[in-house]
Amino acid sequence: MRWIDRSKVAKVAKSPPGLTHLRVTFTDDFYIGPGRADLLEGIAETGSISAAGKRMGMSYKRAWSLVQAMNEGWHALLVETSRGGAGQGGATLSDDGAMVLARYRAMQGAARSAIAADVAAVGKRLGEAARKK
Amino acid sequence: MRWIDRSKVAKVAKSPPGLTHLRVTFTDDFYIGPGRADLLEGIAETGSISAAGKRMGMSYKRAWSLVQAMNEGWHALLVETSRGGAGQGGATLSDDGAMVLARYRAMQGAARSAIAADVAAVGKRLGEAARKK
Repeated sequence: MRWIDRSKVAKVAKSPPGLTHLRVTFTDDFYIGPGRADLLEGIAETGSISAAGKRMGMSYKRAWSLVQAMNEGWHALLVETSRGGAGQGGATLSDDGAMVLARYRAMQGAARSAIAADVAAVGKRLGEAARKK
Repeated sequence: MRWIDRSKVAKVAKSPPGLTHLRVTFTDDFYIGPGRADLLEGIAETGSISAAGKRMGMSYKRAWSLVQAMNEGWHALLVETSRGGAGQGGATLSDDGAMVLARYRAMQGAARSAIAADVAAVGKRLGEAARKK
């Protein structure tokens, strides 16, 4: 019995099996998912919407429109810009923005732990299916 | 203080706040998310890929290609068709297919419970932001 089928190794995902997308919806106008969270995190770390977007391979226009959608959906600012508009000045997270990001990261962690046993069971069966092939 | 802002009521999501998208990735070739799970469930309930897809507003071609992607990614059949091909004959879930669906529903439930406290905290702050506006 071969425990490792070398022909399959290249196909194994780079990251360990598990949660890859968690979206949580609050209203028709506001949800938080991995892309929005990464953008908030990038803004907190770089102090710039443009730099945060660039890090994700996103145009400034796209990053800015995501920020706008978040601020409007929240009915208050999650991201505060130093020029207050579409200018490429500095940007920071408001208290609400930092809270939403922290809570989202906590949700990802909690969800990951909660599904771990089911992920392992499905992964085990998938490994068996791949070996039988 | 108005606890309910009528102008905002229409904007509240139809479903309660919470998990709307959970994707779990196992390999570069196999993941399970809400769309795939709903399709598997529809096939189990209708005995037909076509009927399951129609229920989700999906063309037969799209539903069939999703089934094919799942079967190939799993390296074994999750969905078995009576004609074994692209024909519109009957379809059922294999044991693996039923297991993957059941485990995915369990993961959704576990994740929902695990994030409930964070969802409530974010929802409460969003309600305050909307009322202040």
